[in-house]
Amino acid sequence: MTVDLGHTPAAFNARLERLCSASQSHLCVGLDPDAKHLTPAYLEWISSCLTLPIKGGLTDSNAVLRQLVSIVISATDKYAAAFKPNAAFFEAMPENHDGTLKDISELLLKRDPLTIRLCDAKRGDIGNTSAKYAEAVFTNDSYDCITVNPLMGWDSVEPFVRDPQKGVFLLCLTSNPGADDFLVPNELYLRIAEKAMEWNTHDNIGLVVGATRPDRAATIRKVAPDLPFLIPGIGAQGGSLKETLDAIDAKTNKRFLINASRSIMFPAISPERMYTEAVEAAARTLRDEINSFL
Amino acid sequence: MTVDLGHTPAAFNARLERLCSASQSHLCVGLDPDAKHLTPAYLEWISSCLTLPIKGGLTDSNAVLRQLVSIVISATDKYAAAFKPNAAFFEAMPENHDGTLKDISELLLKRDPLTIRLCDAKRGDIGNTSAKYAEAVFTNDSYDCITVNPLMGWDSVEPFVRDPQKGVFLLCLTSNPGADDFLVPNELYLRIAEKAMEWNTHDNIGLVVGATRPDRAATIRKVAPDLPFLIPGIGAQGGSLKETLDAIDAKTNKRFLINASRSIMFPAISPERMYTEAVEAAARTLRDEINSFL
Repeated sequence: MTVDLGHTPAAFNARLERLCSASQSHLCVGLDPDAKHLTPAYLEWISSCLTLPIKGGLTDSNAVLRQLVSIVISATDKYAAAFKPNAAFFEAMPENHDGTLKDISELLLKRDPLTIRLCDAKRGDIGNTSAKYAEAVFTNDSYDCITVNPLMGWDSVEPFVRDPQKGVFLLCLTSNPGADDFLVPNELYLRIAEKAMEWNTHDNIGLVVGATRPDRAATIRKVAPDLPFLIPGIGAQGGSLKETLDAIDAKTNKRFLINASRSIMFPAISPERMYTEAVEAAARTLRDEINSFL
Repeated sequence: MTVDLGHTPAAFNARLERLCSASQSHLCVGLDPDAKHLTPAYLEWISSCLTLPIKGGLTDSNAVLRQLVSIVISATDKYAAAFKPNAAFFEAMPENHDGTLKDISELLLKRDPLTIRLCDAKRGDIGNTSAKYAEAVFTNDSYDCITVNPLMGWDSVEPFVRDPQKGVFLLCLTSNPGADDFLVPNELYLRIAEKAMEWNTHDNIGLVVGATRPDRAATIRKVAPDLPFLIPGIGAQGGSLKETLDAIDAKTNKRFLINASRSIMFPAISPERMYTEAVEAAARTLRDEINSFL
């Protein structure tokens, strides 16, 4: 892919828009390698795609999962604007040198340096500690952007946004039931959106806005008309794609990513086709569906 | 140390109280190995305590920091009720096999299995992801407790509190200036304290309550009369120890830990004594000062 990125490196939010436009995609492929999906039937289905021998049950589920990550990246990168490894699933794997978050980043960079690498880590702490988390995720150009939990306020966010080329998606209105505990009461999510607007002096702050509450997503769009949205909650969590895209005015504002994790990495078993084909089809279908509403 | 822990393993909060009582300490030693403290003068001062050669400046600050962590643990474990490695500082180190969070946990376990091992990671995500973070931190008895960011609500907290023997400190009112952005407005910190009370059915939930706002800490104590508090903000951040202990009614409720990180691990250079002695003195002095107010 060739994209004219101009002479001055663009700030993250502008780059996100250009890359989505160049790739004709708003799809973010979430990488949540979760062993619970590896039932015996699933293993049998995927076994022909693996180079690991699967004999009489599972011997090393982490090795299988690491290989699946690699297969998913290869099968979907022509449809994806971004990849989003979920830090928790990599931290829970035993330490090793071929399945860390940094390895995934390197693998992505090799495949296509213009794909956005989003580290889903939901970090946030007092200033000097957030600075270390930022260093861990951004050093050596490892990731382009990160999800950040803004609960502790500006000094916990600031270290992540210092470099305009690195992007930050602040948790604003998440797609899970627990959002009703703190984010919804007193409209905390709107206060986060307002603060994000105030803090976005480098054009590199976006918001996580779940697809499960389109009415509230519309309100957030009004408060933050030009911030990029990272949208989880489509697919397994039941959010409606069309309602969400209408709510966030996606036809006008193209700075958004729709994330899908489980529905792409762990598609339902379909004996008539191979795992790799099912993964590719899931990504292509969702990308096309998103584009059909724009 | 011998402590009668009874026949049924106690839930975390009860165990915290017993261990503080047995060790006659409420001191939590924070481990934030930050290379910015390693100035040439500091390196010269600490060099006699290191087995690494320091010649004409710094060659591997991470190796020095790893050794300091080990020195601090040895020098302070007789005064500490708990140790709190800060995940960010370990994640920012290059990958290796002798300085990870798990290694620190093993080192602590070897020194004294009754010292509380608190992983300061401020994690929190949707349910299945929080479950993976909990697995990463708690599996193989790695840590006794963790700090959790409750912004995403109950399903993001629940996986961490499933095991009554594992403790969770929820961010409630942090000690940093940014707490004024979201935690203080509309008294979100009180809502978190109320929810923590509601959720504490296993006697294993506590709160992070900064020492920088004693008046508000007193209000939290009223809402959550029997939850343990983890209290940062003494020392480098300027909180008053006496005011805070009065505010949280520490004479009556002994379930609390006072954290100090920088002031113990990086004491001011004092040429008349060795680094190890200065670290030990800082821990002993703070432990004694806390006890003098009880």
